[in-house]
Amino acid sequence: MLSIGVIGYGYWGPNLVRNFHETPGCRVAAVCDLDAKKLAVLQSRYPAIDVGSDVDALLRRTDIDAVLVATPISTHFELARRALEAGKHVLVEKPLADTTERCDRLIEIADRQKRLLMVDHTFPYTGAVRKIKELIDARALGDLLYYDSTRINLGLFQSDVSVVWDLAIHDLSIIDYLFPEKPVAVSCTGHAHVKGHPANTAFLTLYFQSNCIAHINVNWLAPVKVRLTLIGGSEKMVVYDDTEVTEKVKIYDKGITVNPTAENIQRMRVGYRAGDMWAPLLDGAEALKVLAGHFRDCIATGATPVSSAACGRRLVRTMEAATESMSRQGAVVTL
Amino acid sequence: MLSIGVIGYGYWGPNLVRNFHETPGCRVAAVCDLDAKKLAVLQSRYPAIDVGSDVDALLRRTDIDAVLVATPISTHFELARRALEAGKHVLVEKPLADTTERCDRLIEIADRQKRLLMVDHTFPYTGAVRKIKELIDARALGDLLYYDSTRINLGLFQSDVSVVWDLAIHDLSIIDYLFPEKPVAVSCTGHAHVKGHPANTAFLTLYFQSNCIAHINVNWLAPVKVRLTLIGGSEKMVVYDDTEVTEKVKIYDKGITVNPTAENIQRMRVGYRAGDMWAPLLDGAEALKVLAGHFRDCIATGATPVSSAACGRRLVRTMEAATESMSRQGAVVTL
Amino acid sequence: MLSIGVIGYGYWGPNLVRNFHETPGCRVAAVCDLDAKKLAVLQSRYPAIDVGSDVDALLRRTDIDAVLVATPISTHFELARRALEAGKHVLVEKPLADTTERCDRLIEIADRQKRLLMVDHTFPYTGAVRKIKELIDARALGDLLYYDSTRINLGLFQSDVSVVWDLAIHDLSIIDYLFPEKPVAVSCTGHAHVKGHPANTAFLTLYFQSNCIAHINVNWLAPVKVRLTLIGGSEKMVVYDDTEVTEKVKIYDKGITVNPTAENIQRMRVGYRAGDMWAPLLDGAEALKVLAGHFRDCIATGATPVSSAACGRRLVRTMEAATESMSRQGAVVTL
Amino acid sequence: MLSIGVIGYGYWGPNLVRNFHETPGCRVAAVCDLDAKKLAVLQSRYPAIDVGSDVDALLRRTDIDAVLVATPISTHFELARRALEAGKHVLVEKPLADTTERCDRLIEIADRQKRLLMVDHTFPYTGAVRKIKELIDARALGDLLYYDSTRINLGLFQSDVSVVWDLAIHDLSIIDYLFPEKPVAVSCTGHAHVKGHPANTAFLTLYFQSNCIAHINVNWLAPVKVRLTLIGGSEKMVVYDDTEVTEKVKIYDKGITVNPTAENIQRMRVGYRAGDMWAPLLDGAEALKVLAGHFRDCIATGATPVSSAACGRRLVRTMEAATESMSRQGAVVTL
Repeated sequence: MLSIGVIGYGYWGPNLVRNFHETPGCRVAAVCDLDAKKLAVLQSRYPAIDVGSDVDALLRRTDIDAVLVATPISTHFELARRALEAGKHVLVEKPLADTTERCDRLIEIADRQKRLLMVDHTFPYTGAVRKIKELIDARALGDLLYYDSTRINLGLFQSDVSVVWDLAIHDLSIIDYLFPEKPVAVSCTGHAHVKGHPANTAFLTLYFQSNCIAHINVNWLAPVKVRLTLIGGSEKMVVYDDTEVTEKVKIYDKGITVNPTAENIQRMRVGYRAGDMWAPLLDGAEALKVLAGHFRDCIATGATPVSSAACGRRLVRTMEAATESMSRQGAVVTL
Repeated sequence: MLSIGVIGYGYWGPNLVRNFHETPGCRVAAVCDLDAKKLAVLQSRYPAIDVGSDVDALLRRTDIDAVLVATPISTHFELARRALEAGKHVLVEKPLADTTERCDRLIEIADRQKRLLMVDHTFPYTGAVRKIKELIDARALGDLLYYDSTRINLGLFQSDVSVVWDLAIHDLSIIDYLFPEKPVAVSCTGHAHVKGHPANTAFLTLYFQSNCIAHINVNWLAPVKVRLTLIGGSEKMVVYDDTEVTEKVKIYDKGITVNPTAENIQRMRVGYRAGDMWAPLLDGAEALKVLAGHFRDCIATGATPVSSAACGRRLVRTMEAATESMSRQGAVVTL
Repeated sequence: MLSIGVIGYGYWGPNLVRNFHETPGCRVAAVCDLDAKKLAVLQSRYPAIDVGSDVDALLRRTDIDAVLVATPISTHFELARRALEAGKHVLVEKPLADTTERCDRLIEIADRQKRLLMVDHTFPYTGAVRKIKELIDARALGDLLYYDSTRINLGLFQSDVSVVWDLAIHDLSIIDYLFPEKPVAVSCTGHAHVKGHPANTAFLTLYFQSNCIAHINVNWLAPVKVRLTLIGGSEKMVVYDDTEVTEKVKIYDKGITVNPTAENIQRMRVGYRAGDMWAPLLDGAEALKVLAGHFRDCIATGATPVSSAACGRRLVRTMEAATESMSRQGAVVTL
Repeated sequence: MLSIGVIGYGYWGPNLVRNFHETPGCRVAAVCDLDAKKLAVLQSRYPAIDVGSDVDALLRRTDIDAVLVATPISTHFELARRALEAGKHVLVEKPLADTTERCDRLIEIADRQKRLLMVDHTFPYTGAVRKIKELIDARALGDLLYYDSTRINLGLFQSDVSVVWDLAIHDLSIIDYLFPEKPVAVSCTGHAHVKGHPANTAFLTLYFQSNCIAHINVNWLAPVKVRLTLIGGSEKMVVYDDTEVTEKVKIYDKGITVNPTAENIQRMRVGYRAGDMWAPLLDGAEALKVLAGHFRDCIATGATPVSSAACGRRLVRTMEAATESMSRQGAVVTL
């Protein structure tokens, strides 16, 4: 039985508690937060969980094996560091930390302490993204040509991080999971419409060594919610619409055929294919529940998780580079 | 009665002939093309129109007042130049020419010849875009914050121009029409997936002096057709979906309220508004028919058309700058 | 403080407990069910609630003011009767009872006992239906011409009641709430595709005294979920799509104008209007929470609830008549 | 070369002329209409076609092999009769005639004259319906359980025929084509909202000998256009949405499994299956062009057409029975 302590019971904490609580082999032993009112709500629902505001006390408990950190981003590093030093396995809410350098330090400590350090990137654990991964691994899409995602809605303006760190990270985690190669450079543009706040709209382009490009459009100031991702392959193309209730993933047997030996060489050497569309049945399991079981299993077996600390570090590095590119109006930054 | 000659009867020419043919006060007198088969089809439909392949003969005809140029982009300059020199009013299929310098020369010749030079940008003549213009002019949207457009489908790969010149020009013409200010710089990224062809996917960011930003996503290699434009204002926001049959334009009474004097100063100084949505009835007239009447009227009155040569020149300049930016992986280029 | 006992903790019971538990002025004191496993789950979530399987014990408790009945339909009458006889206010899960005659007896007992008897019809308490009610009451739609609803999905086949009693009752409750007049007759067709089960697809037509007609299409065997209701008025028309996340209610300024004095009298005396569409902001409160507060208030004030026992009786009578009509292949049955 | 005369150049006539004109092996020789203005428009488009208002003159022409009748419904019988008597093959716009008795007489005359008599039912010639036919013939759907269609919009009120004869006929023609058995009885309800006009909204239920039922909802007074047809089979289910531009036909691997030997015999003997969805590529050919080629071929080969006179007669009989049922508020009428 994995005994778990949770630090932070704000927006995401209740989801963590509920899912880990219902994961076989796990039990939530204690939750720490500074807000007594939130703890009282928790207590009324889960009387068996200890609540309190003293992080040190929680970390000192020898009966707690693992700690989940779900606090504001600026505190991720310090809390994860202390938990690892206290000998706990650690799951950090995304992003892993606020700088690449701090990610490196956490990875180093986890290695030294021989403890699991994992990041809570949700999307690679969804049925939709796992199905797309299956298709890509089976080479059903052919060569990957592009990833293009629009992730916009009227969202909470955050005062500490930009929309890149809040929303684009989801696409970065999907790309990191799905694509066999890692991006080599990034160009990012964007704007902060509210003075004193970070950018609330941003447009990222990721470059790869291969014949592939990725683009991410994130916006906290859109009147409608759009979660539309296109993945173009040389054989098939995927449309992943996360606002759909059932048919989230559609695979189109459409594409182009480049035929350099065609007679009409000076124009239109590109042929078009159109075929059937197919929407596979998806596993409807809640992503966070899948992640909880994966965290438990990786601790037990020593396996490297899908959303490993190394992956978390790559995403933070990309977001740092994107932020730098944005400040230079799109100038490319090498990763 | 405005007597019209048409040069080029390929993809767009038939639409020009049909619409100008049905516009009161206009008659299509002659059509020129190198493809005898296409002219035969035209002849069977419109026996009264003269057809032939000799442009010079058409331009020499003194009974022809105006010439429509609907040929490949690289020939726009030369044909428009000759038509203007022959004393004709000229409508050029978009874009006006293939370089800014050539646009300048055409404008100069038109001025000298005192003839109308107009570009066939279709979208500002649609009921949808004209309705949005009304709303903006009436200040219903408040301050304009952003324009964000996705214009993608499985489209014809062109060997002479990139997707910027083929698709992004539509958004540039809409922005030029709707927005009171002109962009001051552009960053553009993109990729040519087929060797030897121009870029088939591109992402443009336009910067303005004001608190506004524009973004355009164009792609010839998408499995589905998307024509989705969001225009964010401080008071209201517009979603313009051109694939909708009826409710193309939706106006959302949604937005944010920045309140710098709020007590909770360190976090969340932004308030959110949500209200009704409204989809106005749109004028369903075919855009090209509206444009045809506008061309006729501007010749008669000497008025400056909506899609003037100066506007056409601004768009060509922006596309030139975007092309340069794309070759430098998004580095900003001043307009 | 209204002290509440709940009988039945199957599909709907947990929703009742959660909503009444969170309604100010109410507390759930006890829950009765035959399934010990379900009670254990409840106990772990709400340790302060008494659980047990003895209905009589619950009804004998003098500290309990009101009872919620959420058991199979065939038991509604007996349980509601005993609760009323024990002096409790009663909320019965829809439908009120399995026959009109039993509804009459319950109403009589409630009158005699001076206790509130209310039915849990959910839809009249939703923000969407309440908004439509507002529009109708303000005469915004003009004269009501038709109600046409499609309510289909791949649903649980029930062995005791047909799809009429399971799904069409929702539309009957909406019509009863929205329309100023009551239906006078019903014709119903349908089919039971699985031998020994009740009809799983049914089509009801309701006749009114006025120039109005209602139609309801319900189906447990549809591959997609459709919840589409159209309400036609002489001035405006409503499209209510309950599968939409936000814009559930759209009001169209469309219709016909009958002009009997038109010159062309022998043909086409009907003119068409097309105008704007408008989607009002809806109250997003959970319907069952609104209903819980309404139940509490009606007990306190003696007011007649929206989903009164008389209303519940009308719906049961209509469903009885529909069932009879279906057995006679659509022959009309007077209400 | 099949030489064709067209009688009636109103709403549908221009479509007939254009499609037959472009069908190899056919030429439109003459068009008859009482409206000189419409004929002038035709003349300007097709100068080679003879126009006039004298039906007798057209029927006397020995160079004309076939006649297309596209006039008001009440005239179908008389014009088709005269054309057949004159020795022409005849295609009649739907419906074949206004009474079953008149259909019988036309069939008898055609038999005697040894001429083809065919009805212009469009839908069985669309790529969508032909694809569904393929699936049904290949037994991919299993046993057919139901057909359920909604065909509504703000449509032209007709003064001579009800919405059954105008819109429901489309569904009747699809059912006649797709389903191996013919309906045995019909129940129909509906309403005429405009006094003196025929019913503008109608709801038909068709009964079959087998475990199958069909339902059709037609309405001229709906604010939105819906063309949604569901076909439920024991193995797979089809959703055919004719308002979709591309993915009109979706096949769902969903259904129920009846298992009478299950242990839990008193409740829930029905299992549920959910699987992938698949949208096949459809032939995009215009239905009327396919029909034109089919008409030409059936004349040449003597084959019985898909939309034969016998089929047209079955549809007229069903609509007669539906009209009778509607006048009796849904009472079933045997076919």
